[in-house]
Amino acid sequence: MTVEESLTSGALKSWKMVVGRLNDFAASAEDEKLECPVAPGKNRVRYLLGHLAVAHDRMLPMLGLGERLHSELDAAYFENPEGTFPDPVSAADLRGILVEVHRKLASAFETLTPQEWLQKHAAVSAEDFSKDPSRNRLAVLLSRTNHASFHLGQMILTK
Amino acid sequence: MTVEESLTSGALKSWKMVVGRLNDFAASAEDEKLECPVAPGKNRVRYLLGHLAVAHDRMLPMLGLGERLHSELDAAYFENPEGTFPDPVSAADLRGILVEVHRKLASAFETLTPQEWLQKHAAVSAEDFSKDPSRNRLAVLLSRTNHASFHLGQMILTK
Repeated sequence: MTVEESLTSGALKSWKMVVGRLNDFAASAEDEKLECPVAPGKNRVRYLLGHLAVAHDRMLPMLGLGERLHSELDAAYFENPEGTFPDPVSAADLRGILVEVHRKLASAFETLTPQEWLQKHAAVSAEDFSKDPSRNRLAVLLSRTNHASFHLGQMILTK
Repeated sequence: MTVEESLTSGALKSWKMVVGRLNDFAASAEDEKLECPVAPGKNRVRYLLGHLAVAHDRMLPMLGLGERLHSELDAAYFENPEGTFPDPVSAADLRGILVEVHRKLASAFETLTPQEWLQKHAAVSAEDFSKDPSRNRLAVLLSRTNHASFHLGQMILTK
């Protein structure tokens, strides 16, 4: 493995570890646990799982890896605060969506070279990217890994 | 910047962003906020800030970057659960320690080359590292970044 490959492999390993914990949490949390707020007056576990499903689903077009799969979750879990809309899918379906999205991302990630990780993502213009080339695919991967850790820390409080 | 430098720079940028949020949170949280548990029956904000201070202080020897600075926090915030020992330092001192540790790490990180980020860390034996070279400095950096995000997500709930 080259130095470049080892570096991107490290970032991917970190993503996989966090997503593995997230999948395990979602798989083991019972339906009634999903209805618990992570702290009094805060988001339910189910809202946060939906929120992460959307954030990760959106990585597909953002990283140029294909169409997204589940925009039906956006209104309830991403674009509006908790409680604005009823849950759009069952708890079982939400768990399945998380697994599906993470599996599609994992396959796509395997195909990217170190150089491709440094290419611009779709949410930045060519002009802005030329001024700040750190706005690349790798930055999105690391940012989403931290974002998932952030909400995982909250959801774990219901255990 | 070479591909290798851009990749390590991305990981460092992610660390700096999370640590910046952590420093900002600690600086703006009033003394009485530090005494709040992040959820009923869970750790106080102050315990988690101390816990992160220790985890980050320990990165100095773990990454071969120098002696650690504040082992006086270990018993209260790292080696035992909340409430086993009284707070060993004042809230103001704890905020200062966080800034001090992060500043020392930032200076040391700037000196490392991509190749050095891929070298083994001090908590893995040469034999184990030869079997699994992913147990390198970069893995520690990414793991601690996620760990800080995890607890930041919890502490933010008290806002």
